[in-house]
Amino acid sequence: MNPVDITSIVTALVHDLKDDMDDMTLAAALSLAEKVKEKAAEMGVKAVVAVANRGGNPVLVQCMDDSYIASFDIALNKAYTSVALKMPTCQLSNLAKPGSPLYGIQHTNAGKIVIFGGGEPLLNKQGKVIGALGVSGGSESEDTALAAYGKEIFEKGN
Amino acid sequence: MNPVDITSIVTALVHDLKDDMDDMTLAAALSLAEKVKEKAAEMGVKAVVAVANRGGNPVLVQCMDDSYIASFDIALNKAYTSVALKMPTCQLSNLAKPGSPLYGIQHTNAGKIVIFGGGEPLLNKQGKVIGALGVSGGSESEDTALAAYGKEIFEKGN
Amino acid sequence: MNPVDITSIVTALVHDLKDDMDDMTLAAALSLAEKVKEKAAEMGVKAVVAVANRGGNPVLVQCMDDSYIASFDIALNKAYTSVALKMPTCQLSNLAKPGSPLYGIQHTNAGKIVIFGGGEPLLNKQGKVIGALGVSGGSESEDTALAAYGKEIFEKGN
Amino acid sequence: MNPVDITSIVTALVHDLKDDMDDMTLAAALSLAEKVKEKAAEMGVKAVVAVANRGGNPVLVQCMDDSYIASFDIALNKAYTSVALKMPTCQLSNLAKPGSPLYGIQHTNAGKIVIFGGGEPLLNKQGKVIGALGVSGGSESEDTALAAYGKEIFEKGN
Repeated sequence: MNPVDITSIVTALVHDLKDDMDDMTLAAALSLAEKVKEKAAEMGVKAVVAVANRGGNPVLVQCMDDSYIASFDIALNKAYTSVALKMPTCQLSNLAKPGSPLYGIQHTNAGKIVIFGGGEPLLNKQGKVIGALGVSGGSESEDTALAAYGKEIFEKGN
Repeated sequence: MNPVDITSIVTALVHDLKDDMDDMTLAAALSLAEKVKEKAAEMGVKAVVAVANRGGNPVLVQCMDDSYIASFDIALNKAYTSVALKMPTCQLSNLAKPGSPLYGIQHTNAGKIVIFGGGEPLLNKQGKVIGALGVSGGSESEDTALAAYGKEIFEKGN
Repeated sequence: MNPVDITSIVTALVHDLKDDMDDMTLAAALSLAEKVKEKAAEMGVKAVVAVANRGGNPVLVQCMDDSYIASFDIALNKAYTSVALKMPTCQLSNLAKPGSPLYGIQHTNAGKIVIFGGGEPLLNKQGKVIGALGVSGGSESEDTALAAYGKEIFEKGN
Repeated sequence: MNPVDITSIVTALVHDLKDDMDDMTLAAALSLAEKVKEKAAEMGVKAVVAVANRGGNPVLVQCMDDSYIASFDIALNKAYTSVALKMPTCQLSNLAKPGSPLYGIQHTNAGKIVIFGGGEPLLNKQGKVIGALGVSGGSESEDTALAAYGKEIFEKGN
């Protein structure tokens, strides 16, 4: 192998390692929130948007004018739930129903588990959960759609 | 009955009583956690394992790498619930369903009652509850199987 | 006074009233956060910035990369406290000391009252509290300075 | 530069990157807990030992036989505090006194901030906080000494 080959291999390797996000950043979260709010405005939803990092800790929360006061906690907890259980919150609705395997999970973590749609884990290129998005303010299907939209945008871009 | 027989009977009895555990120890909990984690690894589950003592207080919690953040509280509360109600948590799913006798029990103890599988009371040789095991991180049936496995191992050994 | 004068006076008055903010908006909060983060970066502080509205409810929270995990709650509660008591949080340190008139106030509102600097109420042109700024992440004097800076910027601009 | 040079440089670089811990692991936490418990036993302290990861989430807790029931929460919260504020909890005692800059900080984070000794942040080789150790069960100076001992052991070894 000649030096030129080695250089290009090493460069690509380092680039890949550096390029992939290891944890959510404020810059990435702000850019994601901007796009989710635009979409919400298009849909006529006054949304609260929350982004958590890989430890489940919040990175940002933004409340669109005239959004529900209750949505702050809900969006924050949707983001927390999606990191803490590594799944979209809309999957929990079924799992947590009476008669389903996780019936009662909404009571296990000091009120921080949300079991309806609007939360999505955010993955890096290696498929690792590095954060999550929580959206609250529209109907359950609107919140679910907005969170899924945000996840798609984020994972394409990161 | 001759004195020799009486002596040997009493000796055996005292030995049994002394040999029997009166409360969970950290040594026993550590050894149990080791075996449950081995089994979890075999099953491909990243588990959180919690062991409580007869007072319902935690003796240990261990979170396998990359396990769910939410599983810490859940495993801990499964162990608590199993001591506090002296039954496996999987028995509570049915009892706590709407229309069933204990519907609502999940709201009674400051959010510490878990009503899905993965918690098992641990008994000593006399059949007394001296602690409990809580497992969280797999599906509900995996957690239930891991807790039952741990209970079996523990009660054979103690 | 002739009709032309009356018209121009009324027009100016209505303009002023309309121009004045009645409640915090997300746009104003985002612009304020941007300036506070810039200043924090200049000072070498990794800050969490929170803005509340006149109801004491959060409008936004932003956590600069590598800021303290604990600062999310602190910044949020500084903003809450500044609206809820209509004073900068640095004024509370003295008032809440043992022997001082408000000793114990930090226990009154479910842990949401912060009694050290970094929170400032934000006033509109008429002098009404329409929100607050909470900053956490530096030393107490840095947080106090950043909040005062933000208040000044905001009240000049709004 | 010849291929041999390049190889050795790249190898060293990758080794450094791989060698350094990015986040706490259960294996590292278990090994640390073992050493802290040994030291506690030598000192006659029945300790509870908690280790958190870089997100402030617990990795393990172990309660030595006959330790204080209250120490579980205290050790856990000392570990949380040390990550969340990136400082040993013994530094907070002074900062949180009446008349000091952070007086009242113990009320800001839902009861999770501990302001007496026994918590230490744990750093990787690059000086980044990747977790923390919390010890409770002895006197304040014993807990402080045990946490400092654990920190020293961990940072030498990692």
